[in-house]
Amino acid sequence: MNKEELERLLADKKSKDLPYNHILSSMCTYPHEVAVYAHEMFIESNLGDSGLFKGTKEMEDEVIAIIGELLGNSNAYGYISTGGTESNIQAIRAIRNRRRREGLSDMNIIVPETAHFSFDKIADILSIEVRKAKVDHQLRVDPESVKELMDERTICIVGIAGTTEFGQVDPIEALSEIAEDSGIFLHVDAAFGGFVIPFLADRDKYKFDFTLEGVSSISIDPHKMGMSTIPAGCILFRDGSYLKELAVSTPYLTIKEQYSLIGTRSGASVAATFAVLKYLGKDGLKTVVDKCMKLTELLVNGAKQMGIEPVIEPVMNVVTLRVHDVDAVVKALRAKGWEVSTTRSPKALRIVIMPHVNDDTIESFLEALNEVVS
Amino acid sequence: MNKEELERLLADKKSKDLPYNHILSSMCTYPHEVAVYAHEMFIESNLGDSGLFKGTKEMEDEVIAIIGELLGNSNAYGYISTGGTESNIQAIRAIRNRRRREGLSDMNIIVPETAHFSFDKIADILSIEVRKAKVDHQLRVDPESVKELMDERTICIVGIAGTTEFGQVDPIEALSEIAEDSGIFLHVDAAFGGFVIPFLADRDKYKFDFTLEGVSSISIDPHKMGMSTIPAGCILFRDGSYLKELAVSTPYLTIKEQYSLIGTRSGASVAATFAVLKYLGKDGLKTVVDKCMKLTELLVNGAKQMGIEPVIEPVMNVVTLRVHDVDAVVKALRAKGWEVSTTRSPKALRIVIMPHVNDDTIESFLEALNEVVS
Repeated sequence: MNKEELERLLADKKSKDLPYNHILSSMCTYPHEVAVYAHEMFIESNLGDSGLFKGTKEMEDEVIAIIGELLGNSNAYGYISTGGTESNIQAIRAIRNRRRREGLSDMNIIVPETAHFSFDKIADILSIEVRKAKVDHQLRVDPESVKELMDERTICIVGIAGTTEFGQVDPIEALSEIAEDSGIFLHVDAAFGGFVIPFLADRDKYKFDFTLEGVSSISIDPHKMGMSTIPAGCILFRDGSYLKELAVSTPYLTIKEQYSLIGTRSGASVAATFAVLKYLGKDGLKTVVDKCMKLTELLVNGAKQMGIEPVIEPVMNVVTLRVHDVDAVVKALRAKGWEVSTTRSPKALRIVIMPHVNDDTIESFLEALNEVVS
Repeated sequence: MNKEELERLLADKKSKDLPYNHILSSMCTYPHEVAVYAHEMFIESNLGDSGLFKGTKEMEDEVIAIIGELLGNSNAYGYISTGGTESNIQAIRAIRNRRRREGLSDMNIIVPETAHFSFDKIADILSIEVRKAKVDHQLRVDPESVKELMDERTICIVGIAGTTEFGQVDPIEALSEIAEDSGIFLHVDAAFGGFVIPFLADRDKYKFDFTLEGVSSISIDPHKMGMSTIPAGCILFRDGSYLKELAVSTPYLTIKEQYSLIGTRSGASVAATFAVLKYLGKDGLKTVVDKCMKLTELLVNGAKQMGIEPVIEPVMNVVTLRVHDVDAVVKALRAKGWEVSTTRSPKALRIVIMPHVNDDTIESFLEALNEVVS
């Protein structure tokens, strides 16, 4: 096949992908233009053998320090992973391996029933029991339920800072106290909320990071609200010795050990993350969140005017709406070119307001919603 | 930071990364220009939610069919992973889960002692015993040693088609017979060799793919000799029911199940893989391998003229050379700007002849080697 034929073929495939501007169901978005620029510049870089790519490795170290500082600990230890699933696996694997070395078996972890499905993968992969704690009427985990599920084989509690379905934040402060009192590892899944909460006007209501003494590790995804390229997740540990629990020795490479779940890994998306963080800085990231929150308010107010109530008042840029016959509404919206998704319990319409959304998007979407529900 | 400052900063970091033209230690290379073109075009595509990116998903399905056909089975089942480590994890996880459902515990797998270090990760992650079989004087696994290690808790045998250290191919035909006789799952790690062996002049000597009835799964990496972008691995199963062993249900996405180890995953590198395979075709891939093998011969002949013998006559584009004080030679070559690596047993100099190598590279490298060893 010659280049012209290939370009036509790729253009045809591209036309079958949905553009993000009508996608209101995803936690991904268009990467920032500086992310794309940096990604292309470092396209061949492999951090699986970081001794060959010392410039990329410097960027990773700097990114870890920047994100750590954003999360209350500029001395956190970690690396850029492929995303929230790898980060969550690695956090649980680190504490599992520590406890396994200490002789424990048949271990369990406690996650909120609102936790991301990656924790079901983790149960399977790591051969560990995942117990699901109840949530309150605001869909935050109930610390009492967590305590009831704990036993001598509980190695980790998980709190979510920005649930996938509702954008809710668990009472991490209460979980942190439980973790401190019991000496149990506390992992915070902030894959979505990590780049949102620090920039909210009422952020003090949602403490979730390393400033809470009981927090042991945090996952946060640059390829979601960090506007980096895929794959870019991040796992951070307060105590660097947990990284050692993940190490395998790597003969025939320029480095002696690898901590990552995978081997060969993209230096391009690390460069992309570095570029966004350097270019936007905290002020730029706040501007992105401010815009998303303003649009979130616009959507909720518009829905309320139609008599549609949100399941919870949005904490971040995730809106869940109570409508009759949710699946039919999703289908009718899809017929009008809109991709939204649903929550499980309570069943509701779910809309994520990512940086690709603007005033016009909300206006057109509200019109479509009005036609569909009336 | 403004764009100009960022561009300068990125250029500075880039200058600290080594260019591949002096890297002779890596199984990665510059991606093909059509891979870069396609990668950029699909930079925002997320196959973790493939219902939104149907064009990208079509490309993945087509890539699986093309690679399956290359490996003797156009009806193989699989997906594009992040690389060889994920592919190997998933193969072992699939058969582990199958046997676990059947009630087996304390399982083991048998890998050659030359297997990639990812199998040590797998032992740790999947809580499975990894037994290491002996190799013969040509560094191929000894089928008798494999048989001796097998017991009623052995769930999988692994054969390597292109060992990381020596580029050797295990006697997969003999392993296939053992697998068929015993009904045990046989996984072939062809992460490196999968895009090499089918194009060798003496390929019939190295049967390794689905044409052997006992082969259950194969891992093959487009981001190595397939000249795609990182991350692009591929796991293929003969029997699609093994994919089901990896499935977790995915509420709030456009798809119902995910088989991948990770969640959000790059559609860009799938597009890149598609582009390379379509553009080069089998003839183009063969041209790449032909060139690498010609240069491999050039290097080995040049070394022999210096009185340096290879550990084995190269099967593919990996050369291992017997020199005195290997570590000192590596250090001296590094001082001259060359990155090579070493093997463990026997300890030797290791050089990988990737597509970025040309005649001049070999000539200059031989000159440097001559200066260093004399």
